[in-house]
Amino acid sequence: MTQDDQPFVTFINIFEVAAEDADAVAAKWRERAAVMSTKPGFLDSRLHKARSAQGRFQLVNVAHWESQEAWEAASTDMDFASRAQAAQQATDTPLRPNTGLYDIVAQF
Amino acid sequence: MTQDDQPFVTFINIFEVAAEDADAVAAKWRERAAVMSTKPGFLDSRLHKARSAQGRFQLVNVAHWESQEAWEAASTDMDFASRAQAAQQATDTPLRPNTGLYDIVAQF
Repeated sequence: MTQDDQPFVTFINIFEVAAEDADAVAAKWRERAAVMSTKPGFLDSRLHKARSAQGRFQLVNVAHWESQEAWEAASTDMDFASRAQAAQQATDTPLRPNTGLYDIVAQF
Repeated sequence: MTQDDQPFVTFINIFEVAAEDADAVAAKWRERAAVMSTKPGFLDSRLHKARSAQGRFQLVNVAHWESQEAWEAASTDMDFASRAQAAQQATDTPLRPNTGLYDIVAQF
């Protein structure tokens, strides 16, 4: 498969958070995802939580967007809104997200 | 959602590999996945490759299995076979996989 065969791009966000913080991070994720899901080009998004509290990556979000451009436009919108909101709020516990856009290179 | 609502478990494997090694790792992944996909309880599996070579996690596998038990049984089988094979081969470049079983805790 090549990138051109796929009518979507996969956005993956890997959260390196402690197990005890996972629920709080998931709650914040839901708020953000609820808004992102209304943006043009959004297809779907799933937040996964590790069964084991020992796992290094407690939360992993896998989302699909129609295109990289649609995802970039939505992210820019969100980040602008988030910065405006953050200016009025106390700082939260910093997350350690690892985000990237991916193509499917093999599947079974 | 709770774990009990879901008739499957999500297996995620996050590979911390350099971009220049990603294709070789993907080729090895395909060999292993081809066998795993024949095991009882396997549903589907997708290997994702980062669009950006700067990404920390160049490859991410997201697979679905009917149950944790099915995944454990298949993994045990595979690891036994791999160890037997490895005993006859030169050591390969070590991967840095991060594996875990996950439940979906939110989706849009």
